[in-house]
Amino acid sequence: MDADTRSALIAKYKAGYAEVVKALEGFPAGELTARPLPGKWTAAEIVHHLADSETQSATRLRKLLAEPYPVIQAYDEAEWARRLYYQTRPIEPSLLAFRAARETTAQLLDLMTEADWRKLGWHSDGGSYHSERWLEIYAEHAHGHAAQIARLKTALAK
Amino acid sequence: MDADTRSALIAKYKAGYAEVVKALEGFPAGELTARPLPGKWTAAEIVHHLADSETQSATRLRKLLAEPYPVIQAYDEAEWARRLYYQTRPIEPSLLAFRAARETTAQLLDLMTEADWRKLGWHSDGGSYHSERWLEIYAEHAHGHAAQIARLKTALAK
Amino acid sequence: MDADTRSALIAKYKAGYAEVVKALEGFPAGELTARPLPGKWTAAEIVHHLADSETQSATRLRKLLAEPYPVIQAYDEAEWARRLYYQTRPIEPSLLAFRAARETTAQLLDLMTEADWRKLGWHSDGGSYHSERWLEIYAEHAHGHAAQIARLKTALAK
Amino acid sequence: MDADTRSALIAKYKAGYAEVVKALEGFPAGELTARPLPGKWTAAEIVHHLADSETQSATRLRKLLAEPYPVIQAYDEAEWARRLYYQTRPIEPSLLAFRAARETTAQLLDLMTEADWRKLGWHSDGGSYHSERWLEIYAEHAHGHAAQIARLKTALAK
Repeated sequence: MDADTRSALIAKYKAGYAEVVKALEGFPAGELTARPLPGKWTAAEIVHHLADSETQSATRLRKLLAEPYPVIQAYDEAEWARRLYYQTRPIEPSLLAFRAARETTAQLLDLMTEADWRKLGWHSDGGSYHSERWLEIYAEHAHGHAAQIARLKTALAK
Repeated sequence: MDADTRSALIAKYKAGYAEVVKALEGFPAGELTARPLPGKWTAAEIVHHLADSETQSATRLRKLLAEPYPVIQAYDEAEWARRLYYQTRPIEPSLLAFRAARETTAQLLDLMTEADWRKLGWHSDGGSYHSERWLEIYAEHAHGHAAQIARLKTALAK
Repeated sequence: MDADTRSALIAKYKAGYAEVVKALEGFPAGELTARPLPGKWTAAEIVHHLADSETQSATRLRKLLAEPYPVIQAYDEAEWARRLYYQTRPIEPSLLAFRAARETTAQLLDLMTEADWRKLGWHSDGGSYHSERWLEIYAEHAHGHAAQIARLKTALAK
Repeated sequence: MDADTRSALIAKYKAGYAEVVKALEGFPAGELTARPLPGKWTAAEIVHHLADSETQSATRLRKLLAEPYPVIQAYDEAEWARRLYYQTRPIEPSLLAFRAARETTAQLLDLMTEADWRKLGWHSDGGSYHSERWLEIYAEHAHGHAAQIARLKTALAK
């Protein structure tokens, strides 16, 4: 990965929280747990997923940097959504967790050496894994979910 | 664990963030990375440790609740402190991460069923593990580190 | 588990190899890879499965005894049968591996202390696990497959 | 790895059991558990180690071939030697297990495709790992221990 690509992805990663906040602006408060798109997550489910997924993502990067032979464990995000009261819990703490995961991790992205970027690890459901692969995945992650929230807002407005 | 003990531990868990904030009040800003107690962590190291450890702790409880046969992986906290730029990074985002981990997880603690509390898991460096054991450990965790920060403040004031 | 039950299961475990050898007696040599029962394993597949499964079983008991917090990893036996040339490889070495796994492990079963028997581990696809549970599973394992081989022999004789 | 190197290593792997048997020829039967070289393993410990290590080695190669994202777990061979009654158990079954592990695995080595040889896995105590790396390690493994047994024999003859 060349330096420009990496910088662009880091910038996108740093912008992801604001993108989700923007998508939530004007979202009808009483409809956070509504499911206008059958089979799709609600806005509340998306926000709690962002908290849990990005929190784990933060830990994954740290494991990559700090462990000699890091193994990243996959997890079942649909099962987490079902079991962890995503439709019951207020979303503000989860927004805070998502924001904090990005802010603390952005500090690391700005400090990482070339050796940090190249250090190899293993993903239990994907094989060889390293920080650049991590960055490709998570730079996009929040933007994708922000777009989902926007689609929910549109669907509810009809 | 009887209901009163559990309630008291949950209350202590919820109070942990404020305890650390109080310990940091009046801490000389320029001394966050000072090491007045040889061989002990600095205030900055403690705060970044709280962020990383409590973030993982939050994930551990979620794994216990959401996975069929959860295995909790131990990690080397001293190595994380050495590798993850604890003496370089501003502490505000880490305080936010610590607070968010506690706030989101406190929501779960208030919603968990008896079955959630009893569900068995395994700790790679301790064996049988469940949510009540988790609660015993983390109810104390922040208070212990708040006391460490207070000792650092005293040592620096001399 | 009382002492009589345990002794009976150990005796059955020790008898398992002979049971399979007896089932293979008179099995038409050219039909080891025939599949007279659609969707069921062939005799060759069963023998290679016994080698691989009982070899892992031997390792599992050793991990239970020798590691502080043993985690036993499940594996996909159907995938092993597909990928590991079970229909191509001569079965004699696999019979030897199965026999050796039982003979070496039987030595351990005769030497284990009460503490060995009770020591807790974890199965990635079953949770709490210990040597008595292991014994219940593997005392039966070879006998079940011997019966399968006998059914194949009957089906081929028609 | 070029084809000649691979063939030579496979041939050495296949010769390993005979090498150990040769080293054991004329070994004084009553001295299998003697420790003439302080801090070194006895002949009995070496043979039981060969059984346990080569049995696991056989499983490792199968995991590499049959699992999508194989993770090979390191183990503590010294602790196994202490806990698994290596100085008490007769060695014949362990010789059989060692021989069977090599014979069954040699079948696989002769059948493996180029894709099998190149398939990547991960070693918990070494990182990236694949079948050629496995072959380099285990082609040597038995020969090294045969030489150890020969040194013990010499030491006992003095």
